[in-house]
Amino acid sequence: MSATIVIGPYSETDLAALNDAFAPTFLASPADLAGLDAATREGATAVAFKGHNAFDGDAMDLLPNLGLIANFGVGYDAIDVKAADARGIKVTNTPDVLNDDVADLAVALLLMRGREMEHATNWARSGQWKEKGEYRLNRKVSGGKAGIIGLGRIGREIANRLVAFKMDIHYFARSEKETPGWTYHADPVSLAKEVDYLIVALVGGPDTANFVSAEVLDALGPRGIIVNISRGSTIDEEALLDALEQDKIYGAALDVYLNEPDINPRFYALDNVVLQPHQGSGTVETRAAMAKLQRDNLVAYHAKEPLLTPVN
Amino acid sequence: MSATIVIGPYSETDLAALNDAFAPTFLASPADLAGLDAATREGATAVAFKGHNAFDGDAMDLLPNLGLIANFGVGYDAIDVKAADARGIKVTNTPDVLNDDVADLAVALLLMRGREMEHATNWARSGQWKEKGEYRLNRKVSGGKAGIIGLGRIGREIANRLVAFKMDIHYFARSEKETPGWTYHADPVSLAKEVDYLIVALVGGPDTANFVSAEVLDALGPRGIIVNISRGSTIDEEALLDALEQDKIYGAALDVYLNEPDINPRFYALDNVVLQPHQGSGTVETRAAMAKLQRDNLVAYHAKEPLLTPVN
Repeated sequence: MSATIVIGPYSETDLAALNDAFAPTFLASPADLAGLDAATREGATAVAFKGHNAFDGDAMDLLPNLGLIANFGVGYDAIDVKAADARGIKVTNTPDVLNDDVADLAVALLLMRGREMEHATNWARSGQWKEKGEYRLNRKVSGGKAGIIGLGRIGREIANRLVAFKMDIHYFARSEKETPGWTYHADPVSLAKEVDYLIVALVGGPDTANFVSAEVLDALGPRGIIVNISRGSTIDEEALLDALEQDKIYGAALDVYLNEPDINPRFYALDNVVLQPHQGSGTVETRAAMAKLQRDNLVAYHAKEPLLTPVN
Repeated sequence: MSATIVIGPYSETDLAALNDAFAPTFLASPADLAGLDAATREGATAVAFKGHNAFDGDAMDLLPNLGLIANFGVGYDAIDVKAADARGIKVTNTPDVLNDDVADLAVALLLMRGREMEHATNWARSGQWKEKGEYRLNRKVSGGKAGIIGLGRIGREIANRLVAFKMDIHYFARSEKETPGWTYHADPVSLAKEVDYLIVALVGGPDTANFVSAEVLDALGPRGIIVNISRGSTIDEEALLDALEQDKIYGAALDVYLNEPDINPRFYALDNVVLQPHQGSGTVETRAAMAKLQRDNLVAYHAKEPLLTPVN
């Protein structure tokens, strides 16, 4: 009987590696735990978890000897960490290995939106360039003012890249951080008023839900572009859709949404947004590094060694 | 009678500014000079030139008192500078003011191709994300090896940005330059062999025609991505199309082509390229700065003051 249960959608390579390492039981979602026989549930001491389906206290209670939930991904908002704490269950995630990819995508989203590269691609590819002439002028991105909301590991990687684009860096965080002269704002509305570009790099979960409010979007204003590579929940999405439909802001470039992948169809009709299908960490290299870190946490746990990247 | 002739396609704003400053005669192309009356031709001492139609010695001979061709754009390969020299005609261009925009587009092109953002956008926007699941994994861009061909002003701006993406910078130039530790290659084939990403930032014109040859593309190899923001002429385009069609290289991201905007239709059928409609300097801010620099050169010439940005 296996001590490990693997939950979620994994690639074939990752499934094979998990199988080799742990000979686990595989499930699609925490909701499937109830269908396991009692012996399997009682024998399980660790879960390898991936995905966005809620892993709550009730699901944890089905595994009375559970000691570890090893999450695939840096964001672990699907896991009720308070419930895990209350049950003496440790949670790990896969930070840092994905910072570069997510920061790359954030900068690319900003440039793609600012320089209208999606529309311009279609202009060239459809032959309109030949038939109708030059694509319309768009806007300069380098030299602008960037506001980072959430100056954690990923926020810093984004800021470091934007410095090379000669941007003036402003940020919001719960407290002022050591930076190379970047400007701290204790209030997200003041930050949004100050900048051309607002990049959201918050953690997800209930504490940051709707953090970017209608008021913040109003403060960003009609020349403002918002980029989100964190979680859809961090922005008041109805307010964002209203602002985009009414051109209250210049545009958005998004990798994350509420209810992925069944996102609000109002997004499809907008031509002032760039939409990406939550692929921030979606490279072969980084997903392999994330999978290895998840497995290494499981190996450490089963060997009673210190966890590599605990979150509680 | 005006001392200035304006040739090429200008925006309404630029036309108005040129009209206010010089009350010039307007023409679409150097080929139209032959249609001007002799008095206008003989009265012309300066030309404001824009576009890609050849401005050769024969055209210059139609303006016997011409002293200046003020080009709009940094690239002046449409103007036969040797012919201008032989006639004592000075040429100016509009360098530097467009470096940031062109470098921004180069980096965005590389990220867009590496992270498959065009395909991923279509995946999200068409609802395939909802219907078919996650977009396929693509490739990490940060941390790669970049090779810049031509380390002039724009090449340096590109390299400076790529350093923030933790890239190892290699470059080709006619001679080794002072750099912060970047690796010089005297041979473009050796450069292409070494790197993952090849970014072409050469000047145009006959000296660099087909500089990126089939041999260079072969050396770049099946994991290589090529970015061109210089001139279509710098790459052997038939060799590039062959390499892309046969997957000899990983892909390309292009802003420039031969015969713009009537580009080779083989490009349209490829799904391993990102195509932009030569919009490197195409922002409102930068085009305004370029137009102003062109006018400032004309003003200096008519006032017999030193030219701001002469090229000969």
